[in-house]
Amino acid sequence: MYEHEFHKRVRYAETDKMGYLYYGHYAKYYEIGRVEMLRSLDFTYREMEDELKVLMPVTSLKCRYVRPAYYDELLCIKTSLRELPGKFITFHVEIFNEKNKLVNGGTVRLCFVDSTSNKTVTAPAVLIQKLKPYFPDSETP
Amino acid sequence: MYEHEFHKRVRYAETDKMGYLYYGHYAKYYEIGRVEMLRSLDFTYREMEDELKVLMPVTSLKCRYVRPAYYDELLCIKTSLRELPGKFITFHVEIFNEKNKLVNGGTVRLCFVDSTSNKTVTAPAVLIQKLKPYFPDSETP
Amino acid sequence: MYEHEFHKRVRYAETDKMGYLYYGHYAKYYEIGRVEMLRSLDFTYREMEDELKVLMPVTSLKCRYVRPAYYDELLCIKTSLRELPGKFITFHVEIFNEKNKLVNGGTVRLCFVDSTSNKTVTAPAVLIQKLKPYFPDSETP
Amino acid sequence: MYEHEFHKRVRYAETDKMGYLYYGHYAKYYEIGRVEMLRSLDFTYREMEDELKVLMPVTSLKCRYVRPAYYDELLCIKTSLRELPGKFITFHVEIFNEKNKLVNGGTVRLCFVDSTSNKTVTAPAVLIQKLKPYFPDSETP
Repeated sequence: MYEHEFHKRVRYAETDKMGYLYYGHYAKYYEIGRVEMLRSLDFTYREMEDELKVLMPVTSLKCRYVRPAYYDELLCIKTSLRELPGKFITFHVEIFNEKNKLVNGGTVRLCFVDSTSNKTVTAPAVLIQKLKPYFPDSETP
Repeated sequence: MYEHEFHKRVRYAETDKMGYLYYGHYAKYYEIGRVEMLRSLDFTYREMEDELKVLMPVTSLKCRYVRPAYYDELLCIKTSLRELPGKFITFHVEIFNEKNKLVNGGTVRLCFVDSTSNKTVTAPAVLIQKLKPYFPDSETP
Repeated sequence: MYEHEFHKRVRYAETDKMGYLYYGHYAKYYEIGRVEMLRSLDFTYREMEDELKVLMPVTSLKCRYVRPAYYDELLCIKTSLRELPGKFITFHVEIFNEKNKLVNGGTVRLCFVDSTSNKTVTAPAVLIQKLKPYFPDSETP
Repeated sequence: MYEHEFHKRVRYAETDKMGYLYYGHYAKYYEIGRVEMLRSLDFTYREMEDELKVLMPVTSLKCRYVRPAYYDELLCIKTSLRELPGKFITFHVEIFNEKNKLVNGGTVRLCFVDSTSNKTVTAPAVLIQKLKPYFPDSETP
Protein backbone atom coordinates (compact mmCIF):
# COMPACT_ATOMS: atom_id res chain seq x y z
CA MET A 1 0.00 0.00 0.00
CA TYR A 2 1.17 3.49 -0.81
CA GLU A 3 -0.49 6.54 0.67
CA HIS A 4 -0.03 10.25 0.13
CA GLU A 5 -1.54 13.46 1.50
CA PHE A 6 -1.87 16.78 -0.24
CA HIS A 7 -3.57 19.98 0.88
CA LYS A 8 -5.69 22.21 -1.28
CA ARG A 9 -7.77 25.22 -0.37
CA VAL A 10 -11.36 25.67 -1.57
CA ARG A 11 -11.49 28.69 -3.86
CA TYR A 12 -14.39 31.07 -4.52
CA ALA A 13 -14.38 29.84 -8.12
CA GLU A 14 -15.23 26.38 -6.79
CA THR A 15 -18.13 27.30 -4.53
CA ASP A 16 -21.75 27.24 -5.61
CA LYS A 17 -24.80 29.22 -4.50
CA MET A 18 -25.34 26.84 -1.56
CA GLY A 19 -21.91 27.98 -0.37
CA TYR A 20 -20.56 24.46 -0.88
CA LEU A 21 -17.64 23.20 -2.91
CA TYR A 22 -19.62 22.26 -6.07
CA TYR A 23 -19.97 18.49 -6.39
CA GLY A 24 -18.43 18.45 -9.85
CA HIS A 25 -15.13 19.88 -8.64
CA TYR A 26 -14.21 16.83 -6.56
CA ALA A 27 -12.97 15.09 -9.72
CA LYS A 28 -10.32 17.81 -9.97
CA TYR A 29 -9.36 17.24 -6.33
CA TYR A 30 -8.99 13.55 -7.14
CA GLU A 31 -6.77 14.48 -10.09
CA ILE A 32 -4.59 16.63 -7.85
CA GLY A 33 -4.36 13.84 -5.27
CA ARG A 34 -3.17 11.19 -7.69
CA VAL A 35 -0.77 13.46 -9.61
CA GLU A 36 0.87 14.64 -6.40
CA MET A 37 1.06 11.05 -5.15
CA LEU A 38 2.93 10.08 -8.30
CA ARG A 39 5.20 13.12 -7.92
CA SER A 40 6.01 12.00 -4.37
CA LEU A 41 7.40 8.81 -6.01
CA ASP A 42 9.48 11.01 -8.30
CA PHE A 43 7.23 10.08 -11.21
CA THR A 44 5.46 12.88 -12.99
CA TYR A 45 2.41 12.45 -15.12
CA ARG A 46 3.78 15.11 -17.48
CA GLU A 47 6.92 13.09 -18.19
CA MET A 48 4.89 9.94 -18.69
CA GLU A 49 2.89 11.71 -21.38
CA ASP A 50 5.85 13.47 -22.98
CA GLU A 51 8.55 10.83 -22.75
CA LEU A 52 6.80 7.48 -22.46
CA LYS A 53 3.94 8.59 -24.73
CA VAL A 54 1.45 7.07 -22.34
CA LEU A 55 -1.87 8.71 -21.47
CA MET A 56 -4.16 7.79 -18.59
CA PRO A 57 -7.84 8.28 -19.42
CA VAL A 58 -10.30 7.78 -16.59
CA THR A 59 -12.59 4.76 -16.97
CA SER A 60 -14.74 5.12 -13.87
CA LEU A 61 -15.38 7.39 -10.94
CA LYS A 62 -17.28 6.84 -7.71
CA CYS A 63 -17.88 9.58 -5.16
CA ARG A 64 -19.72 9.69 -1.85
CA TYR A 65 -20.48 13.18 -0.57
CA VAL A 66 -20.42 12.90 3.19
CA ARG A 67 -20.58 16.53 4.29
CA PRO A 68 -20.13 19.86 2.56
CA ALA A 69 -16.78 21.58 2.17
CA TYR A 70 -16.86 25.35 2.45
CA TYR A 71 -15.06 28.34 1.00
CA ASP A 72 -11.45 28.81 2.08
CA GLU A 73 -11.21 25.49 3.95
CA LEU A 74 -7.85 23.82 3.58
CA LEU A 75 -8.82 20.29 2.62
CA CYS A 76 -6.58 17.26 3.01
CA ILE A 77 -6.69 14.90 0.04
CA LYS A 78 -5.59 11.40 1.08
CA THR A 79 -4.83 9.22 -1.92
CA SER A 80 -3.87 5.58 -1.68
CA LEU A 81 -3.01 2.68 -3.94
CA ARG A 82 -4.02 -0.71 -2.53
CA GLU A 83 -2.54 -2.84 -5.29
CA LEU A 84 0.02 -2.57 -8.02
CA PRO A 85 -1.37 -1.27 -11.31
CA GLY A 86 -1.74 -3.64 -14.25
CA LYS A 87 -4.03 -2.81 -17.14
CA PHE A 88 -5.76 -0.41 -14.75
CA ILE A 89 -4.79 1.69 -11.79
CA THR A 90 -7.27 2.43 -9.02
CA PHE A 91 -6.81 5.34 -6.66
CA HIS A 92 -8.72 5.47 -3.39
CA VAL A 93 -9.37 9.00 -2.21
CA GLU A 94 -10.62 10.47 1.03
CA ILE A 95 -10.94 14.19 1.57
CA PHE A 96 -10.94 15.67 5.06
CA ASN A 97 -11.73 19.17 6.27
CA GLU A 98 -9.77 21.27 8.78
CA LYS A 99 -11.54 19.54 11.68
CA ASN A 100 -10.38 16.21 10.25
CA LYS A 101 -13.94 15.21 9.38
CA LEU A 102 -14.50 13.18 6.25
CA VAL A 103 -15.97 15.34 3.50
CA ASN A 104 -15.84 12.98 0.55
CA GLY A 105 -14.63 9.50 -0.32
CA GLY A 106 -14.32 7.65 -3.56
CA THR A 107 -12.34 5.78 -6.12
CA VAL A 108 -11.17 6.56 -9.60
CA ARG A 109 -9.92 3.98 -12.07
CA LEU A 110 -7.77 4.81 -15.08
CA CYS A 111 -6.23 2.81 -17.89
CA PHE A 112 -3.01 3.31 -19.82
CA VAL A 113 -3.05 4.23 -23.50
CA ASP A 114 -0.10 4.40 -25.87
CA SER A 115 -0.62 7.77 -27.52
CA THR A 116 1.22 6.67 -30.66
CA SER A 117 -0.84 3.55 -31.37
CA ASN A 118 -3.90 4.74 -29.44
CA LYS A 119 -4.08 1.23 -27.87
CA THR A 120 -4.39 0.31 -24.21
CA VAL A 121 -1.20 -0.97 -22.60
CA THR A 122 -0.17 -2.08 -19.10
CA ALA A 123 1.31 0.28 -16.54
CA PRO A 124 4.80 1.55 -17.52
CA ALA A 125 7.61 -0.57 -16.05
CA VAL A 126 9.20 2.47 -14.43
CA LEU A 127 6.01 3.13 -12.46
CA ILE A 128 5.83 -0.49 -11.28
CA GLN A 129 9.44 -0.31 -10.16
CA LYS A 130 8.83 2.79 -8.09
CA LEU A 131 5.76 1.26 -6.45
CA LYS A 132 7.07 -2.27 -5.85
CA PRO A 133 8.86 -1.55 -2.56
CA TYR A 134 5.46 -0.61 -1.09
CA PHE A 135 3.83 -3.87 -2.17
CA PRO A 136 6.30 -6.50 -0.92
CA ASP A 137 3.90 -9.41 -1.29
CA SER A 138 2.72 -8.62 -4.80
CA GLU A 139 3.73 -10.52 -7.82
CA THR A 140 4.40 -8.30 -10.77
CA PRO A 141 1.15 -8.21 -12.67
CA MET B 1 -40.44 5.85 -15.57
CA TYR B 2 -39.82 9.36 -16.82
CA GLU B 3 -37.18 10.09 -19.41
CA HIS B 4 -35.85 13.30 -20.92
CA GLU B 5 -33.28 14.28 -23.52
CA PHE B 6 -31.25 17.46 -23.69
CA HIS B 7 -28.48 18.48 -26.06
CA LYS B 8 -25.31 20.27 -25.08
CA ARG B 9 -22.26 21.08 -27.12
CA VAL B 10 -18.72 20.41 -25.86
CA ARG B 11 -16.94 23.74 -25.44
CA TYR B 12 -13.22 24.54 -25.72
CA ALA B 13 -13.31 25.46 -22.04
CA GLU B 14 -14.28 21.87 -21.27
CA THR B 15 -11.61 20.08 -23.29
CA ASP B 16 -8.29 18.97 -21.85
CA LYS B 17 -4.86 18.50 -23.41
CA MET B 18 -5.82 15.01 -24.62
CA GLY B 19 -8.51 16.78 -26.66
CA TYR B 20 -11.21 15.05 -24.60
CA LEU B 21 -14.09 16.47 -22.63
CA TYR B 22 -12.34 16.51 -19.21
CA TYR B 23 -13.68 13.75 -16.96
CA GLY B 24 -14.59 16.17 -14.21
CA HIS B 25 -17.04 18.09 -16.40
CA TYR B 26 -19.50 15.22 -16.73
CA ALA B 27 -20.95 16.09 -13.33
CA LYS B 28 -22.05 19.41 -14.84
CA TYR B 29 -23.62 17.56 -17.79
CA TYR B 30 -25.49 15.42 -15.26
CA GLU B 31 -26.66 18.61 -13.51
CA ILE B 32 -27.91 20.03 -16.80
CA GLY B 33 -29.69 16.76 -17.61
CA ARG B 34 -31.62 16.59 -14.35
CA VAL B 35 -32.47 20.31 -14.19
CA GLU B 36 -33.83 20.27 -17.73
CA MET B 37 -35.75 17.07 -16.99
CA LEU B 38 -37.44 18.81 -14.07
CA ARG B 39 -38.13 21.86 -16.25
CA SER B 40 -39.83 19.59 -18.79
CA LEU B 41 -42.25 18.72 -15.96
CA ASP B 42 -42.82 22.43 -15.41
CA PHE B 43 -40.87 22.21 -12.16
CA THR B 44 -37.82 24.40 -11.83
CA TYR B 45 -35.02 23.80 -9.41
CA ARG B 46 -34.75 27.57 -8.96
CA GLU B 47 -38.33 27.85 -7.73
CA MET B 48 -37.87 24.88 -5.43
CA GLU B 49 -34.95 26.66 -3.79
CA ASP B 50 -36.56 30.09 -3.73
CA GLU B 51 -40.18 29.26 -2.92
CA LEU B 52 -40.18 25.87 -1.22
CA LYS B 53 -36.84 26.57 0.51
CA VAL B 54 -35.64 23.11 -0.40
CA LEU B 55 -32.07 22.39 -1.53
CA MET B 56 -30.85 19.22 -3.21
CA PRO B 57 -27.26 18.38 -2.27
CA VAL B 58 -25.68 15.44 -4.10
CA THR B 59 -24.95 12.39 -1.92
CA SER B 60 -23.30 10.10 -4.45
CA LEU B 61 -22.11 9.98 -8.03
CA LYS B 62 -21.10 7.07 -10.22
CA CYS B 63 -19.69 7.52 -13.72
CA ARG B 64 -18.42 5.09 -16.34
CA TYR B 65 -16.38 6.65 -19.11
CA VAL B 66 -17.05 4.54 -22.18
CA ARG B 67 -15.43 6.56 -24.96
CA PRO B 68 -14.11 10.10 -25.24
CA ALA B 69 -16.23 13.06 -26.23
CA TYR B 70 -14.52 15.66 -28.37
CA TYR B 71 -14.58 19.40 -28.90
CA ASP B 72 -17.71 20.81 -30.54
CA GLU B 73 -19.64 17.52 -30.46
CA LEU B 74 -23.31 18.00 -29.74
CA LEU B 75 -23.92 15.47 -26.99
CA CYS B 76 -27.30 14.04 -26.08
CA ILE B 77 -27.87 13.77 -22.34
CA LYS B 78 -30.55 11.17 -21.58
CA THR B 79 -31.80 11.43 -18.03
CA SER B 80 -34.31 9.06 -16.48
CA LEU B 81 -36.09 8.49 -13.21
CA ARG B 82 -36.90 4.84 -12.53
CA GLU B 83 -38.78 5.34 -9.30
CA LEU B 84 -40.57 8.09 -7.46
CA PRO B 85 -38.33 10.10 -5.14
CA GLY B 86 -38.67 9.69 -1.38
CA LYS B 87 -35.90 10.77 0.94
CA PHE B 88 -33.60 10.51 -2.07
CA ILE B 89 -33.92 10.99 -5.78
CA THR B 90 -31.75 9.00 -8.19
CA PHE B 91 -31.17 10.13 -11.75
CA HIS B 92 -29.85 7.69 -14.34
CA VAL B 93 -27.85 9.38 -17.05
CA GLU B 94 -26.52 8.25 -20.40
CA ILE B 95 -24.64 10.57 -22.72
CA PHE B 96 -24.44 9.86 -26.44
CA ASN B 97 -22.33 11.47 -29.15
CA GLU B 98 -23.45 12.60 -32.61
CA LYS B 99 -23.05 9.06 -33.95
CA ASN B 100 -25.37 7.87 -31.20
CA LYS B 101 -22.56 5.97 -29.48
CA LEU B 102 -22.56 5.84 -25.70
CA VAL B 103 -19.93 8.18 -24.27
CA ASN B 104 -20.70 8.01 -20.57
CA GLY B 105 -23.22 6.43 -18.23
CA GLY B 106 -23.89 6.88 -14.56
CA THR B 107 -26.15 7.71 -11.69
CA VAL B 108 -26.38 10.58 -9.29
CA ARG B 109 -28.29 10.51 -6.04
CA LEU B 110 -29.44 13.63 -4.20
CA CYS B 111 -31.33 14.29 -1.00
CA PHE B 112 -33.72 17.08 -0.03
CA VAL B 113 -32.77 19.62 2.62
CA ASP B 114 -35.01 22.28 4.15
CA SER B 115 -32.82 25.36 3.93
CA THR B 116 -34.53 26.98 6.90
CA SER B 117 -34.00 24.14 9.37
CA ASN B 118 -31.01 22.63 7.53
CA LYS B 119 -32.63 19.19 8.00
CA THR B 120 -33.26 16.50 5.41
CA VAL B 121 -36.86 16.17 4.27
CA THR B 122 -38.72 14.04 1.74
CA ALA B 123 -39.32 15.13 -1.83
CA PRO B 124 -41.71 18.11 -2.11
CA ALA B 125 -45.34 17.06 -2.66
CA VAL B 126 -45.58 19.17 -5.80
CA LEU B 127 -42.74 17.23 -7.38
CA ILE B 128 -44.36 13.89 -6.51
CA GLN B 129 -47.62 15.07 -8.05
CA LYS B 130 -45.97 16.01 -11.30
CA LEU B 131 -44.15 12.68 -11.50
CA LYS B 132 -46.96 10.36 -10.38
CA PRO B 133 -48.65 10.00 -13.79
CA TYR B 134 -45.43 8.42 -15.06
CA PHE B 135 -45.30 5.86 -12.27
CA PRO B 136 -48.82 4.39 -12.31
CA ASP B 137 -47.94 1.38 -10.19
CA SER B 138 -46.08 3.21 -7.47
CA GLU B 139 -47.45 3.82 -4.06
CA THR B 140 -46.65 7.25 -2.78
CA PRO B 141 -43.48 6.79 -0.80
CA MET C 1 -20.60 44.80 -39.10
CA TYR C 2 -21.77 41.33 -38.30
CA GLU C 3 -23.80 40.58 -35.19
CA HIS C 4 -25.07 37.37 -33.65
CA GLU C 5 -27.12 36.38 -30.62
CA PHE C 6 -26.94 33.16 -28.67
CA HIS C 7 -28.72 32.13 -25.48
CA LYS C 8 -27.16 30.26 -22.61
CA ARG C 9 -28.55 29.41 -19.22
CA VAL C 10 -26.58 29.99 -16.00
CA ARG C 11 -25.86 26.61 -14.39
CA TYR C 12 -25.41 25.74 -10.72
CA ALA C 13 -21.84 24.75 -11.57
CA GLU C 14 -21.21 28.35 -12.61
CA THR C 15 -22.62 30.11 -9.56
CA ASP C 16 -20.53 31.12 -6.57
CA LYS C 17 -21.33 31.56 -2.89
CA MET C 18 -22.66 35.08 -3.53
CA GLY C 19 -25.23 33.41 -5.77
CA TYR C 20 -23.73 35.17 -8.80
CA LEU C 21 -22.39 33.75 -12.04
CA TYR C 22 -18.70 33.62 -11.04
CA TYR C 23 -16.71 36.37 -12.75
CA GLY C 24 -14.25 33.91 -14.24
CA HIS C 25 -16.93 32.09 -16.23
CA TYR C 26 -17.68 35.02 -18.53
CA ALA C 27 -14.66 34.12 -20.65
CA LYS C 28 -16.44 30.85 -21.47
CA TYR C 29 -19.59 32.80 -22.40
CA TYR C 30 -17.46 34.93 -24.70
CA GLU C 31 -16.05 31.74 -26.24
CA ILE C 32 -19.55 30.40 -26.84
CA GLY C 33 -20.63 33.72 -28.35
CA ARG C 34 -17.83 33.87 -30.92
CA VAL C 35 -17.94 30.17 -31.83
CA GLU C 36 -21.68 30.31 -32.44
CA MET C 37 -21.27 33.53 -34.42
CA LEU C 38 -18.79 31.78 -36.70
CA ARG C 39 -21.13 28.77 -36.99
CA SER C 40 -23.92 31.14 -38.09
CA LEU C 41 -21.62 32.00 -41.02
CA ASP C 42 -21.28 28.29 -41.75
CA PHE C 43 -17.70 28.41 -40.50
CA THR C 44 -16.79 26.16 -37.60
CA TYR C 45 -13.85 26.66 -35.35
CA ARG C 46 -13.42 22.87 -35.24
CA GLU C 47 -12.95 22.64 -39.01
CA MET C 48 -10.54 25.56 -38.98
CA GLU C 49 -8.36 23.69 -36.48
CA ASP C 50 -8.71 20.29 -38.14
CA GLU C 51 -8.64 21.20 -41.81
CA LEU C 52 -6.92 24.57 -42.09
CA LYS C 53 -4.55 23.77 -39.20
CA VAL C 54 -5.14 27.21 -37.76
CA LEU C 55 -5.50 27.88 -34.04
CA MET C 56 -6.82 31.05 -32.45
CA PRO C 57 -5.16 31.82 -29.13
CA VAL C 58 -6.57 34.73 -27.14
CA THR C 59 -4.24 37.72 -26.83
CA SER C 60 -6.33 40.01 -24.64
CA LEU C 61 -9.58 40.17 -22.75
CA LYS C 62 -11.48 43.09 -21.26
CA CYS C 63 -14.63 42.68 -19.18
CA ARG C 64 -16.88 45.12 -17.38
CA TYR C 65 -19.20 43.57 -14.82
CA VAL C 66 -22.30 45.75 -14.83
CA ARG C 67 -24.74 43.72 -12.70
CA PRO C 68 -24.82 40.16 -11.40
CA ALA C 69 -26.27 37.26 -13.36
CA TYR C 70 -28.09 34.67 -11.29
CA TYR C 71 -28.71 30.94 -11.31
CA ASP C 72 -30.98 29.64 -14.07
CA GLU C 73 -31.22 32.95 -15.91
CA LEU C 74 -31.26 32.55 -19.67
CA LEU C 75 -28.65 35.05 -20.78
CA CYS C 76 -28.41 36.53 -24.24
CA ILE C 77 -24.84 36.76 -25.56
CA LYS C 78 -24.58 39.41 -28.29
CA THR C 79 -21.36 39.11 -30.24
CA SER C 80 -20.32 41.50 -32.97
CA LEU C 81 -17.44 42.06 -35.36
CA ARG C 82 -16.88 45.71 -36.22
CA GLU C 83 -14.11 45.20 -38.74
CA LEU C 84 -12.71 42.45 -40.92
CA PRO C 85 -10.05 40.36 -39.22
CA GLY C 86 -6.42 40.71 -40.31
CA LYS C 87 -3.61 39.55 -38.07
CA PHE C 88 -6.08 39.80 -35.22
CA ILE C 89 -9.80 39.40 -34.78
CA THR C 90 -11.67 41.38 -32.14
CA PHE C 91 -15.06 40.29 -30.87
CA HIS C 92 -17.28 42.73 -29.01
CA VAL C 93 -19.57 41.04 -26.53
CA GLU C 94 -22.56 42.20 -24.53
CA ILE C 95 -24.49 39.88 -22.25
CA PHE C 96 -28.08 40.65 -21.30
CA ASN C 97 -30.35 39.05 -18.71
CA GLU C 98 -33.99 37.99 -19.13
CA LYS C 99 -35.14 41.54 -18.40
CA ASN C 100 -32.90 42.75 -21.22
CA LYS C 101 -30.61 44.54 -18.77
CA LEU C 102 -26.90 44.61 -19.53
CA VAL C 103 -25.01 42.20 -17.29
CA ASN C 104 -21.55 42.32 -18.79
CA GLY C 105 -19.72 43.90 -21.70
CA GLY C 106 -16.27 43.44 -23.11
CA THR C 107 -13.94 42.61 -25.92
CA VAL C 108 -11.69 39.70 -26.67
CA ARG C 109 -8.89 39.74 -29.22
CA LEU C 110 -7.39 36.63 -30.76
CA CYS C 111 -4.64 35.98 -33.28
CA PHE C 112 -4.25 33.20 -35.85
CA VAL C 113 -1.50 30.59 -35.52
CA ASP C 114 -0.51 27.97 -38.07
CA SER C 115 -0.36 24.84 -35.93
CA THR C 116 2.17 23.20 -38.23
CA SER C 117 4.76 25.98 -38.17
CA ASN C 118 3.59 27.46 -34.85
CA LYS C 119 3.79 30.93 -36.46
CA THR C 120 1.20 33.67 -36.50
CA VAL C 121 -0.64 34.11 -39.79
CA THR C 122 -3.46 36.33 -41.07
CA ALA C 123 -7.11 35.32 -40.96
CA PRO C 124 -7.94 32.38 -43.28
CA ALA C 125 -9.18 33.50 -46.70
CA VAL C 126 -12.35 31.46 -46.36
CA LEU C 127 -13.28 33.37 -43.20
CA ILE C 128 -12.69 36.73 -44.90
CA GLN C 129 -14.87 35.64 -47.81
CA LYS C 130 -17.75 34.74 -45.54
CA LEU C 131 -17.50 38.02 -43.68
CA LYS C 132 -16.95 40.38 -46.62
CA PRO C 133 -20.61 40.83 -47.57
CA TYR C 134 -21.17 42.36 -44.11
CA PHE C 135 -18.35 44.87 -44.54
CA PRO C 136 -19.08 46.41 -47.93
CA ASP C 137 -16.76 49.37 -47.49
CA SER C 138 -13.75 47.46 -46.24
CA GLU C 139 -10.69 46.80 -48.27
CA THR C 140 -9.35 43.32 -47.80
CA PRO C 141 -6.79 43.68 -45.05
CA MET D 1 2.98 49.50 -2.57
CA TYR D 2 2.35 46.00 -1.31
CA GLU D 3 3.40 42.97 -3.28
CA HIS D 4 2.89 39.26 -2.78
CA GLU D 5 3.85 36.06 -4.58
CA PHE D 6 2.00 32.77 -4.62
CA HIS D 7 2.69 29.60 -6.57
CA LYS D 8 0.07 27.45 -8.26
CA ARG D 9 0.49 24.48 -10.52
CA VAL D 10 -1.42 24.13 -13.79
CA ARG D 11 -3.77 21.15 -13.54
CA TYR D 12 -5.04 18.85 -16.28
CA ALA D 13 -8.53 20.15 -15.51
CA GLU D 14 -7.34 23.61 -16.55
CA THR D 15 -5.72 22.72 -19.87
CA ASP D 16 -7.53 22.86 -23.19
CA LYS D 17 -7.09 20.95 -26.44
CA MET D 18 -4.26 23.26 -27.52
CA GLY D 19 -2.43 22.03 -24.42
CA TYR D 20 -2.58 25.54 -22.93
CA LEU D 21 -3.95 26.76 -19.65
CA TYR D 22 -7.42 27.80 -20.93
CA TYR D 23 -7.73 31.58 -21.14
CA GLY D 24 -10.80 31.65 -18.94
CA HIS D 25 -8.98 30.13 -15.97
CA TYR D 26 -6.70 33.11 -15.41
CA ALA D 27 -9.49 34.89 -13.55
CA LYS D 28 -9.27 32.11 -10.94
CA TYR D 29 -5.50 32.59 -10.73
CA TYR D 30 -6.12 36.29 -10.14
CA GLU D 31 -8.58 35.37 -7.39
CA ILE D 32 -6.01 33.12 -5.74
CA GLY D 33 -3.37 35.85 -6.00
CA ARG D 34 -5.45 38.53 -4.28
CA VAL D 35 -6.90 36.24 -1.59
CA GLU D 36 -3.44 34.98 -0.65
CA MET D 37 -2.10 38.53 -0.66
CA LEU D 38 -4.79 39.52 1.83
CA ARG D 39 -4.01 36.42 3.91
CA SER D 40 -0.35 37.47 4.02
CA LEU D 41 -1.61 40.62 5.75
CA ASP D 42 -3.47 38.43 8.22
CA PHE D 43 -6.75 39.48 6.62
CA THR D 44 -8.93 36.76 5.20
CA TYR D 45 -11.62 37.28 2.65
CA ARG D 46 -13.69 34.64 4.44
CA GLU D 47 -13.72 36.60 7.68
CA MET D 48 -14.54 39.81 5.84
CA GLU D 49 -17.62 38.13 4.39
CA ASP D 50 -18.63 36.32 7.58
CA GLU D 51 -17.80 38.90 10.23
CA LEU D 52 -17.80 42.27 8.53
CA LYS D 53 -20.63 41.26 6.16
CA VAL D 54 -18.76 42.81 3.28
CA LEU D 55 -18.64 41.23 -0.18
CA MET D 56 -16.26 42.14 -2.98
CA PRO D 57 -17.82 41.75 -6.42
CA VAL D 58 -15.53 42.27 -9.39
CA THR D 59 -16.30 45.34 -11.50
CA SER D 60 -13.70 44.98 -14.25
CA LEU D 61 -11.00 42.66 -15.52
CA LYS D 62 -8.21 43.21 -18.03
CA CYS D 63 -5.90 40.42 -19.17
CA ARG D 64 -3.04 40.29 -21.64
CA TYR D 65 -2.02 36.81 -22.71
CA VAL D 66 1.70 37.02 -23.41
CA ARG D 67 2.67 33.38 -23.87
CA PRO D 68 0.98 30.06 -23.13
CA ALA D 69 1.23 28.27 -19.81
CA TYR D 70 1.40 24.50 -20.00
CA TYR D 71 0.29 21.51 -17.99
CA ASP D 72 2.07 20.94 -14.68
CA GLU D 73 4.00 24.21 -14.78
CA LEU D 74 4.37 25.82 -11.39
CA LEU D 75 3.29 29.38 -12.07
CA CYS D 76 4.21 32.34 -9.91
CA ILE D 77 1.33 34.76 -9.37
CA LYS D 78 2.66 38.23 -8.43
CA THR D 79 -0.07 40.44 -7.05
CA SER D 80 0.43 44.05 -6.09
CA LEU D 81 -1.55 46.97 -4.73
CA ARG D 82 -0.30 50.35 -5.93
CA GLU D 83 -2.66 52.49 -3.91
CA LEU D 84 -4.83 52.22 -0.84
CA PRO D 85 -8.36 51.02 -1.56
CA GLY D 86 -11.27 53.45 -1.28
CA LYS D 87 -14.57 52.73 -2.95
CA PHE D 88 -12.64 50.32 -5.18
CA ILE D 89 -9.58 48.15 -4.86
CA THR D 90 -7.38 47.42 -7.87
CA PHE D 91 -5.04 44.44 -7.95
CA HIS D 92 -2.22 44.30 -10.50
CA VAL D 93 -1.29 40.77 -11.43
CA GLU D 94 1.62 39.28 -13.32
CA ILE D 95 2.00 35.54 -13.82
CA PHE D 96 5.38 34.01 -14.56
CA ASN D 97 6.33 30.50 -15.65
CA GLU D 98 9.13 28.31 -14.27
CA LYS D 99 11.66 30.02 -16.55
CA ASN D 100 10.57 33.35 -15.07
CA LYS D 101 9.02 34.44 -18.36
CA LEU D 102 5.87 36.55 -18.24
CA VAL D 103 2.83 34.47 -19.16
CA ASN D 104 0.02 36.87 -18.39
CA GLY D 105 -0.50 40.34 -16.98
CA GLY D 106 -3.57 42.25 -15.98
CA THR D 107 -5.64 44.12 -13.49
CA VAL D 108 -8.83 43.38 -11.66
CA ARG D 109 -10.96 45.97 -9.89
CA LEU D 110 -13.48 45.13 -7.18
CA CYS D 111 -15.87 47.16 -5.07
CA PHE D 112 -17.12 46.63 -1.53
CA VAL D 113 -20.75 45.77 -0.84
CA ASP D 114 -22.48 45.57 2.54
CA SER D 115 -24.27 42.25 2.30
CA THR D 116 -26.95 43.34 4.75
CA SER D 117 -28.02 46.52 2.94
CA ASN D 118 -26.75 45.38 -0.48
CA LYS D 119 -25.18 48.84 -0.90
CA THR D 120 -21.64 49.72 -1.94
CA VAL D 121 -19.39 50.90 0.88
CA THR D 122 -15.75 51.94 1.21
CA ALA D 123 -12.98 49.49 2.10
CA PRO D 124 -13.25 48.17 5.68
CA ALA D 125 -11.19 50.19 8.19
CA VAL D 126 -9.35 47.08 9.35
CA LEU D 127 -8.08 46.47 5.82
CA ILE D 128 -6.90 50.07 5.46
CA GLN D 129 -5.06 49.78 8.77
CA LYS D 130 -3.22 46.67 7.69
CA LEU D 131 -2.22 48.24 4.39
CA LYS D 132 -1.28 51.74 5.61
CA PRO D 133 2.30 50.90 6.66
CA TYR D 134 3.03 50.03 3.03
CA PHE D 135 1.71 53.34 1.72
CA PRO D 136 3.50 55.89 3.92
CA ASP D 137 2.70 58.86 1.71
CA SER D 138 -0.99 58.16 1.24
CA GLU D 139 -3.71 60.06 2.89
CA THR D 140 -6.51 57.87 4.10
CA PRO D 141 -8.97 57.86 1.24
